[in-house]
Amino acid sequence: MENRLTAILERIGPLDAAAQAAARQRQDTLTKPRGSLGRLEDLSVQLAGILGSPLPRIEHKAIITMAGDHGVAAEGVSAYPQEVTPQMVRNFLRGGAAINVLARHIGARVVVVDMGVAAELATHPGLVVRKVGRGTGNIARGPAMTREQAVQCLLSGVEVLEGELAKGLDIVGTGDMGIANTTPAAAIAAAFTGDAPEQFVGRGTGVDDEGLARKVRAVARALEVNRPVPSDALDVLAKVGGFEIGGIAGVILGAAANRRPVVVDGFISTAAAMIAVGLAPRALPYIVAAHRSGETGHGRMMAWLGVQPLVDLNMRLGEGTGAALAISLAEAACKILCEMATFAEAQVSEREDR
Amino acid sequence: MENRLTAILERIGPLDAAAQAAARQRQDTLTKPRGSLGRLEDLSVQLAGILGSPLPRIEHKAIITMAGDHGVAAEGVSAYPQEVTPQMVRNFLRGGAAINVLARHIGARVVVVDMGVAAELATHPGLVVRKVGRGTGNIARGPAMTREQAVQCLLSGVEVLEGELAKGLDIVGTGDMGIANTTPAAAIAAAFTGDAPEQFVGRGTGVDDEGLARKVRAVARALEVNRPVPSDALDVLAKVGGFEIGGIAGVILGAAANRRPVVVDGFISTAAAMIAVGLAPRALPYIVAAHRSGETGHGRMMAWLGVQPLVDLNMRLGEGTGAALAISLAEAACKILCEMATFAEAQVSEREDR
Repeated sequence: MENRLTAILERIGPLDAAAQAAARQRQDTLTKPRGSLGRLEDLSVQLAGILGSPLPRIEHKAIITMAGDHGVAAEGVSAYPQEVTPQMVRNFLRGGAAINVLARHIGARVVVVDMGVAAELATHPGLVVRKVGRGTGNIARGPAMTREQAVQCLLSGVEVLEGELAKGLDIVGTGDMGIANTTPAAAIAAAFTGDAPEQFVGRGTGVDDEGLARKVRAVARALEVNRPVPSDALDVLAKVGGFEIGGIAGVILGAAANRRPVVVDGFISTAAAMIAVGLAPRALPYIVAAHRSGETGHGRMMAWLGVQPLVDLNMRLGEGTGAALAISLAEAACKILCEMATFAEAQVSEREDR
Repeated sequence: MENRLTAILERIGPLDAAAQAAARQRQDTLTKPRGSLGRLEDLSVQLAGILGSPLPRIEHKAIITMAGDHGVAAEGVSAYPQEVTPQMVRNFLRGGAAINVLARHIGARVVVVDMGVAAELATHPGLVVRKVGRGTGNIARGPAMTREQAVQCLLSGVEVLEGELAKGLDIVGTGDMGIANTTPAAAIAAAFTGDAPEQFVGRGTGVDDEGLARKVRAVARALEVNRPVPSDALDVLAKVGGFEIGGIAGVILGAAANRRPVVVDGFISTAAAMIAVGLAPRALPYIVAAHRSGETGHGRMMAWLGVQPLVDLNMRLGEGTGAALAISLAEAACKILCEMATFAEAQVSEREDR
């Protein structure tokens, strides 16, 4: 199975430099001062390079929201009971969650994936079942999963992405749901950066002071007990990761292998991006960092990756909510590039010094 | 005419506190941890208070883009010739400018207003003509306009806003076009804050080093020659403002008087907001600051107003482009409030400590 993964990683190539150059050149002919649309211009050039077109179009959009449970919830690291994970999956399927509202707002479909919820979910036409297990092992006491399960998570993510490609997909956003999943995400971040656990431990979705202390201890213990090897991203995923985190890493790799932009949501998705880029550094330019999460340490994770978020609204919900807002910006960036008139077309005078 | 203006200012009342309280309470029952949607939640509460509904809906959207010319262009403060102002107005009317693209993206109409372009524009069904003059006076040598003209700008802005209300308007964004208009905007900012001109003088839409020095001198001279009185916002507008800047200030006042949220674009629109809030401090809570402009000193202007921008993408184009992106966020914020399921509706467990 590791061979199948290797084959996918090897498919990831560089961006289309010619499309990027043509897009940059076109930006400079549009009826606005050069560079005056700031990061929207840079984003349009990146998207041109990813999609391999000087006039990239974003029409088909999806948010892939992956759910999983975490054995480390037993350490009292979350303010919410574990039953909330399947309850929220049902909320996603009924369209009542924040991600459903924001996906409708931007015209994206939501793909809900059970990567490893610790409950049997009733079958539902909208639910993609890729269950790797019923919750991970407790990382404070041992590994989250086996190396084989880690590979399975990644391949499942790739397959879900490729399934969506067949339905039409110009851009994909990642999302997560999993009670206690800020704890493995923090452990992943600490493992890769070498920074102290407390740099990545915040209040998650609302833990109190004691819970915060328990969370710092749980992350520290996860690193001590498991000793993840940062140069081996699969080892990090297996030892201190999560099923949905591995799935999201697979979505990122699948997007890169298939030349689609992948908009990485917040704290959990960024931990998944660290796994993906750890496995395949060439995946990095396919990533668009959606937003700066309100979670502690998210900035350090993005700095390690070398990405800059588009949005900063102090959001810390996950689900893909930040990705949804950023996808709308990506679509806007492409429309600017494709739809604006040039100086020549609009008969507008250029600068006096040119 | 000043009496008519006073009557409008007196119509501006406080936000609807009951609607705000109900919106805040509802946010806390929705299926997400409290506060986890960050500024989108605060924005939804503000919009509830402005629109006077605990479930505010944003459907009808407009960007009002006002154009005017500036006598100070003669001082060599812009990299572009003055003829670009009418050329860009024609570009707006044909739908080829950045604001057209972004307004289509968010489903808003663009209202193009000639507040004082220094050329006769051909009549066009899409062009609203409110010409106060053919360009302002050169503020480096004398006043921009008379006090009567300043009042006329403001009343025109109110009237344009009220004309749009009749067509359906749940939110309005402001936009500007006017070669050299960063110079009066900087003078307005320096006049109100008392800070040095160079704090507000940047490269506009692309001026070189010499142009930058000329711009600093022009702003300094405008303040010396005209001595605008910061406690009299009408005096500031008349002495160092611009026709489109006064029009935008009028749009802001009209929105506040009619209980509509007004999304204030970047540098020029923020200078207009300083005029509006200088005239009527009660207009402030009706303002949504769209984005942090790439222009020098915009942060100081927003700090003086006490507003925080939603978007920071290093944009510095004007036209209402930042406002368009922020209007989409405002719409998303309202949808979150109105469309998300509550914990009870979705049968999701709440926090264990509540």
